[in-house]
Amino acid sequence: MKSQAVPFNWAQWTALPESEKVKYLTVEGRVYDVLFSQQFNRALLDHLYVLTNRIRLISKTREGADWLSTLLSTKKAMLYFIQPSTRTFLSFWSACAVLGIRVVDVRSTETSSEVKGESSDDTLRTFSSYFDLLITRHPEQGYAERASFILGKTRRPIPVINAGSGKDQHPTQALLDIFTLRRSFEPTGGLRDKTIMMVGDLRRGRTVRSLCYLLANFEDIRIVFCSPKAYGMGEDIKQFLTRHKVAWSETDRFEASIPDADAIYMTRLQDEHDVAGETHAYDVSQFSFRPEHLKILKPSAVLMHPLPRRTEIDEEVDRDPRAMYWRQVRNGMWTRVALIAHLFGVDRRILDK
Amino acid sequence: MKSQAVPFNWAQWTALPESEKVKYLTVEGRVYDVLFSQQFNRALLDHLYVLTNRIRLISKTREGADWLSTLLSTKKAMLYFIQPSTRTFLSFWSACAVLGIRVVDVRSTETSSEVKGESSDDTLRTFSSYFDLLITRHPEQGYAERASFILGKTRRPIPVINAGSGKDQHPTQALLDIFTLRRSFEPTGGLRDKTIMMVGDLRRGRTVRSLCYLLANFEDIRIVFCSPKAYGMGEDIKQFLTRHKVAWSETDRFEASIPDADAIYMTRLQDEHDVAGETHAYDVSQFSFRPEHLKILKPSAVLMHPLPRRTEIDEEVDRDPRAMYWRQVRNGMWTRVALIAHLFGVDRRILDK
Amino acid sequence: MKSQAVPFNWAQWTALPESEKVKYLTVEGRVYDVLFSQQFNRALLDHLYVLTNRIRLISKTREGADWLSTLLSTKKAMLYFIQPSTRTFLSFWSACAVLGIRVVDVRSTETSSEVKGESSDDTLRTFSSYFDLLITRHPEQGYAERASFILGKTRRPIPVINAGSGKDQHPTQALLDIFTLRRSFEPTGGLRDKTIMMVGDLRRGRTVRSLCYLLANFEDIRIVFCSPKAYGMGEDIKQFLTRHKVAWSETDRFEASIPDADAIYMTRLQDEHDVAGETHAYDVSQFSFRPEHLKILKPSAVLMHPLPRRTEIDEEVDRDPRAMYWRQVRNGMWTRVALIAHLFGVDRRILDK
Repeated sequence: MKSQAVPFNWAQWTALPESEKVKYLTVEGRVYDVLFSQQFNRALLDHLYVLTNRIRLISKTREGADWLSTLLSTKKAMLYFIQPSTRTFLSFWSACAVLGIRVVDVRSTETSSEVKGESSDDTLRTFSSYFDLLITRHPEQGYAERASFILGKTRRPIPVINAGSGKDQHPTQALLDIFTLRRSFEPTGGLRDKTIMMVGDLRRGRTVRSLCYLLANFEDIRIVFCSPKAYGMGEDIKQFLTRHKVAWSETDRFEASIPDADAIYMTRLQDEHDVAGETHAYDVSQFSFRPEHLKILKPSAVLMHPLPRRTEIDEEVDRDPRAMYWRQVRNGMWTRVALIAHLFGVDRRILDK
Repeated sequence: MKSQAVPFNWAQWTALPESEKVKYLTVEGRVYDVLFSQQFNRALLDHLYVLTNRIRLISKTREGADWLSTLLSTKKAMLYFIQPSTRTFLSFWSACAVLGIRVVDVRSTETSSEVKGESSDDTLRTFSSYFDLLITRHPEQGYAERASFILGKTRRPIPVINAGSGKDQHPTQALLDIFTLRRSFEPTGGLRDKTIMMVGDLRRGRTVRSLCYLLANFEDIRIVFCSPKAYGMGEDIKQFLTRHKVAWSETDRFEASIPDADAIYMTRLQDEHDVAGETHAYDVSQFSFRPEHLKILKPSAVLMHPLPRRTEIDEEVDRDPRAMYWRQVRNGMWTRVALIAHLFGVDRRILDK
Repeated sequence: MKSQAVPFNWAQWTALPESEKVKYLTVEGRVYDVLFSQQFNRALLDHLYVLTNRIRLISKTREGADWLSTLLSTKKAMLYFIQPSTRTFLSFWSACAVLGIRVVDVRSTETSSEVKGESSDDTLRTFSSYFDLLITRHPEQGYAERASFILGKTRRPIPVINAGSGKDQHPTQALLDIFTLRRSFEPTGGLRDKTIMMVGDLRRGRTVRSLCYLLANFEDIRIVFCSPKAYGMGEDIKQFLTRHKVAWSETDRFEASIPDADAIYMTRLQDEHDVAGETHAYDVSQFSFRPEHLKILKPSAVLMHPLPRRTEIDEEVDRDPRAMYWRQVRNGMWTRVALIAHLFGVDRRILDK
């Protein structure tokens, strides 16, 4: 957050609706902290989409890759990943590497000064003393937001990117999902008039919530929530979609719904959030994509998954060209390169290249 | 230590007074290993002070920062931090990054070959085979000194920087404290004729001991040791100061002593060194700086702390311009850049820039 | 492995003899994956020997070191070291640094997505999505080979280097050992007509097995296996040597065999592979090199050890010029630089420099 930007205390801040918070997370028309998906309006999504494609293109030549790696070569980033997540960690690490940013990580609190009884606020101030960017995944609910708030109260704030805290949103995952959807649908007229089915433990899934917020920026799409009744999408999201005139429906019949979908977004059972026994109810097999389903899947459709997966998608399916989840992984890296380039204001130079 | 430099065995070496050791830690007039504060005389402190300010200035422009990052871009450093300390670790990491040094770290012995029963001497020789610099914090008393000694016996020694071992000194912390004091006192005639009060667990505090050694290089200063009687500064330091004609006194009345101080150096209770129950005696509240103390603090005074802090300084105090501890953190990075630049002999080029 | 290269499934693949596998691990005449020593024929060993010497020479000047660090500066490598090994880890890290490759590491499975129940195949695909090279040491037998196989089945394979998996071979160790032998014997006519004694726990030692495979590429050498009877070299290796007309013999009398050796390759007791009590039989003192042995060692001979060592070689011996084990460590780094340069096809540019 911009230095001394916020006239509120923490209690007042958290009471604000996301839509109110957005302007404090923006400095001179560009995103400063990346905390939740509602920060990304259509104009910004379009900008990042073009930027990401441009970066991928430039990086294909040795000369281009060299040039990209000079853009932010004097910047230093801290990857503060207290909640384990190899994939997201490596994706951000690689994105920083592409731009020449030097990265250090703290991947366990043991190595942290907190053992000497330091407050986590002081730990944050220490980070902002040495680094130009903080990318964090933390078990504590709302950690990234608090980090942004705390640093905003100091004379030396730095941008904070939420790589997933507690059961929060996971905004950069949503960005890469949107990118993948748009790229996949380019031959078929883009996102407009498409049916996107989200499947699995929607109640506790972080990525599907964030994705819904972004999808509200696009016209004429239909969202189908497919899950066991007890694992349906939260009311808040459904109301949000209704407010934004996004058509949505619910079903617990996966197989029967496959033929209508233009995109199927599979997710895993979030049983790390379980309270004992809870998930007996959930029959994973009923919400898994099996090889035979390829026959009833539209030829133009795409199959996505945020990963890591368990058995929701049979590995045999990977070979089908409609399986997009490994491309999502690569897209995630490029999307994060674009986002960081935007944060530091080198996006213009990239587009002009 | 310079290759095969020392004519003594370990027992003989450790028997030498620090003042004797210094010459073996110096090669062609420049520091080779950084083990303890007594290595830094007034001339060297002045040199590092000018160098540090120069580096901060150069780094302010993108062009300058780029230039700095080329100076040692083919060097490799090992950060061997077996004793956790995020702040010091990140400070050295950042300092290396500023100079373009590539850094790898070992932050836990689990990942070390020692599990296969390798002697720590062989581990050191391995480090010196791959790296150009060893920066270490280790629970073992005198580890950095032993590392320097062991490597000095080999054909391929490398510089060793003591980032704090056991209850040893913490020389680079003392360097940054001196730098902060001098910078803070520039408007008011420098360190000469100033009263510096050190507060807290002086008996076990590493930083205050190192700082005392460096302060002996300056004229007409007064040191006030403020602590509970049972936690007073060690006799060795007090005798050292007396030998060097530094005026010092002791008190256990913190609040009453605030008005006379030009600098107050707060430290925390070092209870990780406790033997059971010991610290009942210590009433932290009596040796804490509270917001109301700002009223009785000289307008020109500075308030310092090596961090991490607990409750010795109320967070409300942070906003006061006399609160220097967050600037200390930044100064620490710049001081370490200067020190490493000196070790590798690029300080001349920086001053000529 | 080259994308979709292998027409077999895993069971069929593992059934192939190493000699059959080699061609699938080679792409356009250069090594793609480094899995076992049998991949290295005489021509390749000669090439790497020249290349390694060239690299060492170039790196001696600042200008040369700078040039080397640009060769692969846009590449990213993953060091996946689930089995702790500081030495090998740091050696590869340094080798990458010399070539300007950016390196990230995963040194413990805790930090891995596997905690969320991801299959290790998916973890590998994630690595190949972000990185250009995978260097791995893993407790699982044959892990590196499986990684190469799995990635070979995908659209985006990357080279895999086996840094030691389970009780497998340790091919890059063998490369550095051969390099050290050749360099040491340059004044005395090279490897031809030399007697190489391997000492210690040959039954379970990884490095001696790999070294034997490489030695079969050289004419007129004699290998002496010196160990307690219960810890002799495996039949498979002895048959391999016989097939390749390499003279070998066995003895359990270490001291008596020293005078005949041109090179003595000491190894430690591999008791981490012990089943209870097993190693009572093994009297380490009978297979240790003591200072007095220097008197009966040929003046032109060399004493080697893969390290880490315990008591197999007295530290006093280190000072003798015939003690090569610390030079092996350095050679290991340079050999790995050469190998990686070859993998990425920049070896030609280095030789032309």
